Amino acid sequence: MNSLEKKIAYLGPPGTYSEQAAEEWNNGYELLPLESIPAVAKSVENGEAFQGVLPIENSIEGGVTFTLDLLIHDSSLSICGEVIVPINHYLMAHEEIALSSITTVYSHPQSLGQCRQFLLKNLPQATLVASLSNAKAVEEMLLADPGSAAISSERSARLYGASVLQKNVEDNPNNETRFVVLSHSDHEMTAHDKTSLCFEFDGDSPGILSESLTEFASRNINLVKIESRPNKRRLGRYVFLVDIDGHRKTQEVGEALDALRSKVSMLKIFGSYPKCDT
Amino acid sequence: MNSLEKKIAYLGPPGTYSEQAAEEWNNGYELLPLESIPAVAKSVENGEAFQGVLPIENSIEGGVTFTLDLLIHDSSLSICGEVIVPINHYLMAHEEIALSSITTVYSHPQSLGQCRQFLLKNLPQATLVASLSNAKAVEEMLLADPGSAAISSERSARLYGASVLQKNVEDNPNNETRFVVLSHSDHEMTAHDKTSLCFEFDGDSPGILSESLTEFASRNINLVKIESRPNKRRLGRYVFLVDIDGHRKTQEVGEALDALRSKVSMLKIFGSYPKCDT
Repeated sequence: MNSLEKKIAYLGPPGTYSEQAAEEWNNGYELLPLESIPAVAKSVENGEAFQGVLPIENSIEGGVTFTLDLLIHDSSLSICGEVIVPINHYLMAHEEIALSSITTVYSHPQSLGQCRQFLLKNLPQATLVASLSNAKAVEEMLLADPGSAAISSERSARLYGASVLQKNVEDNPNNETRFVVLSHSDHEMTAHDKTSLCFEFDGDSPGILSESLTEFASRNINLVKIESRPNKRRLGRYVFLVDIDGHRKTQEVGEALDALRSKVSMLKIFGSYPKCDT
Repeated sequence: MNSLEKKIAYLGPPGTYSEQAAEEWNNGYELLPLESIPAVAKSVENGEAFQGVLPIENSIEGGVTFTLDLLIHDSSLSICGEVIVPINHYLMAHEEIALSSITTVYSHPQSLGQCRQFLLKNLPQATLVASLSNAKAVEEMLLADPGSAAISSERSARLYGASVLQKNVEDNPNNETRFVVLSHSDHEMTAHDKTSLCFEFDGDSPGILSESLTEFASRNINLVKIESRPNKRRLGRYVFLVDIDGHRKTQEVGEALDALRSKVSMLKIFGSYPKCDT
C-alpha cells in the first residue's frame, strides 16, 4: 500500500462538519477533501483514498438520502465504522451587522432546515440560498455583497475569517450527525458492534415486513434503526435500511441474516462495525 | 360556510406541480397559492382555506420531510384525500441557447436531485442554485443573466413565457409525486380506502416494532408504506409513519389500532381516505 492509499476522503471543502468527523476518525492519515458524496465513494473505490467519511443521518433532519441511495444503488463499499459529531450552527457575515440588515443567507439546505425557526423569527426578510456545503456557503457569502450572511460551523468561520454574528442558531439543541466510514472491507468483531443492511421485497404481502423483522426479534437482536427509501422504479415500492445490534459473524446475527435472505428479493449487507454510543 | 372557506390552498406560486395536484383534486373551488408548506396548513387551520394540498412523497427522492414533520409535530389537521401527479421536468431559459453556455441552473433542491445525472452529464459547468419552488426558479432565472436556466414544469414555462431547451430532463422516467389533502376531518368510508398514522415507542426493545406491525399482518391488513423520521429529541430515536389499507372505521383496522395503542408511547391517526392507484 503506497502513501496515496493512506488518505482519508471526506465531503469538503475544509471547514465542514465532515472534516471534523474525518479528523475524529482518522489515526494520523492525511485528509482528502472532495466535492461531492459520490466523489468520496469513488476515491475509495479507485484507491485514491484508503477510507471515506460520509454523513448518513442527522438527529433533526433524518437520513442523508444521497448517502443512503449511494449505499443501496451505486457502491459496493463496506461500512467499517461510524462517528457522531454534535452540530452547532453559527450565523456569520463579512463583519458585524444588524440581523435586520441581512438580505441573503447562504447555507447547505439541511442546515437551513435545521435553523428554520430561527430564520423565520429573526431573518424573515432574508432570501435563503442553498450551497453545496456549509463551508462553500461561507466562501460564497464572502464573495457576495456585505448584506449577505452564512450559516456554518465555528470551524469554517475561523478558517475563512468570517465574523460570527450569533452562536448556536440551530432550532434544536439535540442536533447531532452520524457519519459512516466506507472502506473495501468492514470491521473485525469487537465487544460492541452493529450491522447495517438493506433489503427489498417483490410484490405485496400484508405480513412480509413484520415477518422479516421477527427474524431479528425472535433471536433477541435489537433493531437500532429502520428507514425506507423509494426503490426508484415505482411509487409505493421501497428498499428498507436496517441497523441491528451485533456483528454479522456472530451466530445469532448470521442465522437471522440467512433467514431474512430466504424472504426477500434483494439483501445487501453494508457491514459490521463498532458502535458509537448516542 | 362562507365563500372564503371554499378556497383550496396549495404550495405556490402558480405553475408548481402542487397547483397541478390542487387542480386535479378540486371540484370548482378557488385555488389559493401560498408561500410555504406551514402556510398551507395554517390557512386551513384558521379557516382561510377549506382544504390544503401538500406534496408528501416522490417516487425517486422519497418522503417530503417538511410535510411529514408538519403532520407529526405541528398540525392537528386530518388527511382527507390523495392525488398522484406524474413529474416531467423541463429545462428552460430566456431564449434558445446552447447547453454549454449555461452558467447557472435554478430549481427546487428536490428537482435538482431528480435531474442529477442529466446535470452532471450535460451541464457539468453550471452552478446549481436552490429555489423555494420550481415556479419561483423560473421567476428568478428570468431576472438573472441570459446564461441562466431553470428546471421546472411545462406549465410554468408557459405561464412565465420561458423558452424550453429540453423536455423530460428527469433521470428516471418513473417520476411521480403523491400529494395529500389536509382538512379538518378525514373522509367517509368508501370501497377502496387507506389510513395514515404515526407512532413512537419509549425505550429499546428488540421486538417492539415487529410486534406492532404484526397487529396489522395478523388481521390481514396490508402495510402500504413505512417510513421513519427522527423524533428530534435524540439521535437514534424515531417516529414511524405507516400507511395501511382500509378505513379506520372498519372492524379489523379499528381493532389493530386499539392493539397498537397499547404498545406505543404515542399514536396519531392522520386519517382515512380513498386510495389512488399507483
